Amino acid sequence: MKIDDLDTPVLLVDKDALERNVSRMQTLVKKGKIAYRPHAKAHKSPEIAKIQLNAGACGVCCAKLGEAEVMAANGIKDILITTPVIGISKLSRMMQVANQAKVSVVVDNQKNVEEMNKVAKTFGVRPDVVIEVDVGQGRCGVAPGEQALVLAKDVMSADWLNFKGLQGYQGNIQMTRSFSDREIATRHAASFLNNTAKLIKEDGIPVNYLTGGGSGTSVIDAKLAGLTELQPGGYIFMDSRYREIEWDNGKNIPFEQSLMLLTSVISMPKPGYCVLDMGLKAVSSDGGNPSPIDLPSSDFQFAGEEHSALTFKNGGCPLKLGAKVLFSPSHCDTTVNLYDNIIAVSRKDVVEVWKIAARGRTQ
Amino acid sequence: MKIDDLDTPVLLVDKDALERNVSRMQTLVKKGKIAYRPHAKAHKSPEIAKIQLNAGACGVCCAKLGEAEVMAANGIKDILITTPVIGISKLSRMMQVANQAKVSVVVDNQKNVEEMNKVAKTFGVRPDVVIEVDVGQGRCGVAPGEQALVLAKDVMSADWLNFKGLQGYQGNIQMTRSFSDREIATRHAASFLNNTAKLIKEDGIPVNYLTGGGSGTSVIDAKLAGLTELQPGGYIFMDSRYREIEWDNGKNIPFEQSLMLLTSVISMPKPGYCVLDMGLKAVSSDGGNPSPIDLPSSDFQFAGEEHSALTFKNGGCPLKLGAKVLFSPSHCDTTVNLYDNIIAVSRKDVVEVWKIAARGRTQ
Repeated sequence: MKIDDLDTPVLLVDKDALERNVSRMQTLVKKGKIAYRPHAKAHKSPEIAKIQLNAGACGVCCAKLGEAEVMAANGIKDILITTPVIGISKLSRMMQVANQAKVSVVVDNQKNVEEMNKVAKTFGVRPDVVIEVDVGQGRCGVAPGEQALVLAKDVMSADWLNFKGLQGYQGNIQMTRSFSDREIATRHAASFLNNTAKLIKEDGIPVNYLTGGGSGTSVIDAKLAGLTELQPGGYIFMDSRYREIEWDNGKNIPFEQSLMLLTSVISMPKPGYCVLDMGLKAVSSDGGNPSPIDLPSSDFQFAGEEHSALTFKNGGCPLKLGAKVLFSPSHCDTTVNLYDNIIAVSRKDVVEVWKIAARGRTQ
Repeated sequence: MKIDDLDTPVLLVDKDALERNVSRMQTLVKKGKIAYRPHAKAHKSPEIAKIQLNAGACGVCCAKLGEAEVMAANGIKDILITTPVIGISKLSRMMQVANQAKVSVVVDNQKNVEEMNKVAKTFGVRPDVVIEVDVGQGRCGVAPGEQALVLAKDVMSADWLNFKGLQGYQGNIQMTRSFSDREIATRHAASFLNNTAKLIKEDGIPVNYLTGGGSGTSVIDAKLAGLTELQPGGYIFMDSRYREIEWDNGKNIPFEQSLMLLTSVISMPKPGYCVLDMGLKAVSSDGGNPSPIDLPSSDFQFAGEEHSALTFKNGGCPLKLGAKVLFSPSHCDTTVNLYDNIIAVSRKDVVEVWKIAARGRTQ
């Protein structure tokens, strides 16, 4: 089956480029002598997770418990849930996942620690607990230093929880344009985490696990070795937004854009203009417009939930009714979450269909 | 089961409000003596379509063939596809739907008409064809007047196609703030369609079907009777954006906001601030931020794909860890498309679960 045989809009991934991205990340963390635990929130697909694990990843990250349930049900054996799991209902679900796989979970709140301990006891399982430290993002996480130490002591004194270490993720700096600014900010985030780990160790609590980082800072984090484990997600696909940022003092982007949308021309009502079958329900807009591949002289506009339009500056439209047009999404995570399948292609051939089994698993 | 027993984030609909909206639209079109064919792209749920049909709708609209397939498979018997269906593969799928239900489809291109005629002949089915006229939106559709007449003749001369009438939809004016401006623009769009129908009739081709309109112009279109059939979609849910527009010279909004998102507080790292479990994957952002219900003194911000944050202006956060917070989405269509189910509630009780069976059916 060829790409052109597919009905559109359809989500494609260049399998060769994806595998090169996986292999490049592997080289990066090997050089840096740190582990890597790719973030499954990016692809939500157990099949892609297995490609990463086969290449050397130590496990996967999941943003939500619902993703962890899908990964565990599909045979993934080591899962870190990177967002707090709150309340009896979700904690009970989490303990059931912990019966199928090794589960770690972040915490940033003493009441959550207490409740988790009770539920763990009820289920007779002992999850690993990672304290989330706010290393600059200002979202979840206890403040670095004393607050983290207090919570570490709470976890240590909870009979049914294992204290595993610290998480520090600075999402705001992943797309900092200047490489040197990004490097400074990455060192800054790492120092918060390292100083907090030092403080906790000085209190006699061992801290051998520091997890965090993303695709944009991965080249820095891997060299810096401030973390023991890297959590990149988007590097396998690469948002088109990553084109805008600098990499390692002018070097090329270390990862390739592998994710694509194939669309079709469905209407040509006037000269120099055509309508495509991809609207807001087929590609995300929160990161900006998708970029047409191989149509440099065209302007893209969303035209509702089911349509978009291309306008051609230099007169006529070079496309015919039914012509296929490829796009790079500006934000892969939210685009993948719109589809049930990713079609893996190699050049013009369809080679595999991967189920986005955790699509919509926001709970 | 109570709302508070549900894991979050979860999509809710106030079933009573939805039914009141359906009943109000029914009253509106009955007074105006026009038919109504609600747009299933808004809810993508055969169960909700059946509520509309039981109340008096003559059929449903679908934006995409994939939606039509789901509706037909679930027993919906009269479907208008409001976007051109292009290419042999999709036309073949459409003819299979036409074996299960009465199918009408819009066209705006002579080549599409030719190809559709051939495929219809192969399948031995005879779909109804509606010519899309651009009544001001500038998206799909032939120009009003002569161009539409030419295409109507093409359809008339195609052995396997029935010419049914015209579609004219002006999406750009649905949220025009001023009611009188919206009224003028609606009359303008209707006149394009009526004049085109007149021209075609003068050529001896009967035109008894004029379909179009949306939720924002429904109160105007129903009175105006320029259309024979109304296509409102969002009126059952009502985007929070509709709050901003004027209705019928200062009267109240004729439809209620029935769609809601229930979220939970998952982190409280600092005073006057909390993090919720609803990010860009759980509510759409293309129409602006969702609005918290019953928390007027809070500021909402997205905080990534899985998180958002509330900041409270007057000091402390009134919520506890695990507290539930309700939101109205700014854009219902794209929010519904993120979920597999809608939980129908009545006051605080869960009364039904409706499958969003056509979710993600963008093809």
